[in-house]
Amino acid sequence: MPRFHARVLVSLRPSVLDPAGEAARSAANRLGVEGISKLRIGKVVDLELEADNEAEARKQLELLSDRLFANPVIEDWSLELQPVPTTTA
Amino acid sequence: MPRFHARVLVSLRPSVLDPAGEAARSAANRLGVEGISKLRIGKVVDLELEADNEAEARKQLELLSDRLFANPVIEDWSLELQPVPTTTA
Repeated sequence: MPRFHARVLVSLRPSVLDPAGEAARSAANRLGVEGISKLRIGKVVDLELEADNEAEARKQLELLSDRLFANPVIEDWSLELQPVPTTTA
Repeated sequence: MPRFHARVLVSLRPSVLDPAGEAARSAANRLGVEGISKLRIGKVVDLELEADNEAEARKQLELLSDRLFANPVIEDWSLELQPVPTTTA
């Protein structure tokens, strides 16, 4: 069965405050890096899965992203999907 | 001063256990997605900063990634950096 590598990026919606990001920005200032204008912290989920085809893999990943990885009330997610090259010649 | 958009991906080193990832994988099974063979959860830091040039921006971001965003004992990080197009014509 074909294997796929997927990366789901989960970020806070723009309207949601990000106190952890703000704290990191302040800490960056204290380390002497003063040019930072925006800083948001999100999650990244890297996974490999088997599926019949890319459309099926995408469907399963959309389900997981909506139900499991992200909280759709406060978070957006985006999905990168690519086939894993088969190594069996 | 030129502005840059940066994305720092922070992931657990391969030798470090990821209990949150394992829990997510089990939960995915319970949602009916059974083909997942690997799943690791990391962090992503999206930021914009001003710097004299790209080399300077990279230097500052490497400092922040090592000292602030990642814990180098258990985490790796990778950096994507690109200039923000200036909108002033």
